[in-house]
Amino acid sequence: MVTVRVFVTLKPSLLDSAGRTVADRLQALGYSEVHGTRIGKVIELEVDLADEGRIDEMCRKLLSNPVIEDYRFEVVE
Amino acid sequence: MVTVRVFVTLKPSLLDSAGRTVADRLQALGYSEVHGTRIGKVIELEVDLADEGRIDEMCRKLLSNPVIEDYRFEVVE
Repeated sequence: MVTVRVFVTLKPSLLDSAGRTVADRLQALGYSEVHGTRIGKVIELEVDLADEGRIDEMCRKLLSNPVIEDYRFEVVE
Repeated sequence: MVTVRVFVTLKPSLLDSAGRTVADRLQALGYSEVHGTRIGKVIELEVDLADEGRIDEMCRKLLSNPVIEDYRFEVVE
C-alpha cells in the first residue's frame, strides 16, 4: 500500500479570507512576526499502487476545483 | 521572509467521515485502487523568522485542537 499526499490550495491571485483572518488574529494575539497565512487542504490517499497519471486525473477531476484551486501531489512511501 | 508549513490532521483513532466519503466516492467512480482517505489542513505562514518554539506554541494553542488533532510543521525556505 502506498500513501499519496495531495495538496490543494487556492490560486495565489485569489483572496484567502480565512487565511487572512487567521493572520490578523495571530498578530493581534502577539505573534507579530506573522505577515500572511494561506489555508489549504491536504488529502492523504491510501492506494494499491501509485499510477501518477490516474492520481493526476483524480486531483484534476474530483479532488480540486481547477477554476479556483491549484494542486500538487507527492508519493510518500 | 520564511515560509512555515503547518499540517493539522485528525488523530488516527478518530473517524474522518469526510475522508471516508471521498474514498467511497472515488471507488464508486472507478478508482478502485483507493482504499482510504484522510483530509487535513495545511496552513502556510509567512513569518519574519522561524522561531520553532513560538511556531510550536501557535500550533498548539491556536492552529490546532489538541483534543482531536495532531500537528507538525516544517520550515520551507
